[in-house]
Amino acid sequence: VKNLADLGERHIIELIKNLVKQNESMIGIGDDCAALDMGKEYLLLTTDMITKHTHISERMTAYQQGWFLVAINLSDLAAKGGKPLAVLIALGLPKNTSEKYVQDLIKGANDCAVRYGTVIAGGDTKENQTITLCGTAVGCVKKDEIMLRKGAQPGDVLAVTGTVGHAAAGYYELQQQKNNPVLLKGLFEPIPRIPEGQILGKMKVISSCMDSSDGLSSSLYQLQESNHLGFEIQKTLLPLSPNLSLLCFDDPYECALHFGGDYELLCTLPKHQVPNVQQELKKLGTSFTVIGSVTKDEGISLLSSGTKKVLPNKGYEHFSPHVFL
Amino acid sequence: VKNLADLGERHIIELIKNLVKQNESMIGIGDDCAALDMGKEYLLLTTDMITKHTHISERMTAYQQGWFLVAINLSDLAAKGGKPLAVLIALGLPKNTSEKYVQDLIKGANDCAVRYGTVIAGGDTKENQTITLCGTAVGCVKKDEIMLRKGAQPGDVLAVTGTVGHAAAGYYELQQQKNNPVLLKGLFEPIPRIPEGQILGKMKVISSCMDSSDGLSSSLYQLQESNHLGFEIQKTLLPLSPNLSLLCFDDPYECALHFGGDYELLCTLPKHQVPNVQQELKKLGTSFTVIGSVTKDEGISLLSSGTKKVLPNKGYEHFSPHVFL
Repeated sequence: VKNLADLGERHIIELIKNLVKQNESMIGIGDDCAALDMGKEYLLLTTDMITKHTHISERMTAYQQGWFLVAINLSDLAAKGGKPLAVLIALGLPKNTSEKYVQDLIKGANDCAVRYGTVIAGGDTKENQTITLCGTAVGCVKKDEIMLRKGAQPGDVLAVTGTVGHAAAGYYELQQQKNNPVLLKGLFEPIPRIPEGQILGKMKVISSCMDSSDGLSSSLYQLQESNHLGFEIQKTLLPLSPNLSLLCFDDPYECALHFGGDYELLCTLPKHQVPNVQQELKKLGTSFTVIGSVTKDEGISLLSSGTKKVLPNKGYEHFSPHVFL
Repeated sequence: VKNLADLGERHIIELIKNLVKQNESMIGIGDDCAALDMGKEYLLLTTDMITKHTHISERMTAYQQGWFLVAINLSDLAAKGGKPLAVLIALGLPKNTSEKYVQDLIKGANDCAVRYGTVIAGGDTKENQTITLCGTAVGCVKKDEIMLRKGAQPGDVLAVTGTVGHAAAGYYELQQQKNNPVLLKGLFEPIPRIPEGQILGKMKVISSCMDSSDGLSSSLYQLQESNHLGFEIQKTLLPLSPNLSLLCFDDPYECALHFGGDYELLCTLPKHQVPNVQQELKKLGTSFTVIGSVTKDEGISLLSSGTKKVLPNKGYEHFSPHVFL
């Protein structure tokens, strides 16, 4: 009998997809959000659970846990071009949890929601053996502005907002028992790209989009699966987080390619649209960097100093033997 | 320093309510669902987490766990008169969970969603030490058809759909190590009152409504808090589940008053509307029984053989010392 450790999260998602009834008017399981047809708009829905075991480090404050819970759910809306409408949070907490912990967690969750134009509209609190937090974000997007995972075209370029390895830098800081709050923030207080996502959606030039939270390599393999196309990544084009080189003793490019926890938007688009997008995102102070291109044939390669290698799929996947955080 | 066991769930909800930003156009924390103003309609949102520790008995099948997760979330929509639009499920599971468990759970969740006219639109799977399942239900209701917790009027009668103590009967069957599947179903496969809720909403005669999942006494105390009114319950009017008397060695009325797990609708309405409501619900085969009345003064009393006693608040509350299930 197979168990989840043998199967991995991606297989489980496939299994679920095949068991549930599909609704024709709905974009369902397999994208960052579910999208319900509401006439002129899609209603976007997403849920993400975090647990002590997988996401909540001992060094994370209660405030950061609340922020993180809301941010990762909003990031899924951002990747579809969505405007947030509301967030729900369900808290599974041990009996001996302090009132102060709950207060700080709620403050963090509320601050993140309000910062991105929405509110905590409701939730649930339940007793649990280990801290387990589950968030749900609801948003909307005009039908012609939604950015789906599916839609990449051969010849498109692949681009990413911000930097890669920002969270990894925080992870190495943590691993070295150091405590620079700015670096830890990169890991514990991710920035959902809500305004960027809405601008990208409104420009109607993005052919496919997802967030990079599972790591760049894992995200690319997921994007390949949705599109049945391939990617060529130019290693030297990767916009490395400036701190990563200082902290990562291994090859920082390797970290940037495989480490999860960055909540950037990974997009494909026609090459000639890149300057327009860069100009629009510059108004928000956000960079937009071409890192490769979309190929007709499946397969993901990494190009570096004239050589071409297959990019391994080493990103963060739940239940798989390899766990980064 | 106070911890959650000292405070209880109700206090935590108050604490959260005071910390989060309130949105004027939204019905927020404290009702069964959050309600977002969408123009002609409210979008209804609710989330409920269940854990091995509090809700998932060893005797519950994986199918029943999935059904239960969806049913309790749909019940919150039902209590507001809502039509379900979509359900999300987030699964926190140990690494050694079998593929079969996930398949059966999804089948149960899907069957419940489809039975009540909706679908599982998405979700999340994460590794967790103990099984923790979190559901979210999204629905809609016309603005003038929503039934809120607030709105009860002095002189209204108090009524309940179906029977009371249906889940309690299942609990006693379980406790006596017996295994009548029909009785266990009452506890493990609750029926969300989705069609009943929609009919009640459309009739526009219900002044307040909530589901009775926390138990009748606890629900009444919550309804009192929302309305600043009181209730008088006629003990002999309680529509006891037929099996309860057979299985409960204590006073079955006590069980029916305090045991949680029934997902019935608890409503207040003008007395003269009762026959109309009964006639409409009869078409669904669902009874609607007056069990008491709304009083101007706060306080909840139980009337029985000419005596009047204060009804104690003994229902199910998380983190409180007394746990039923």
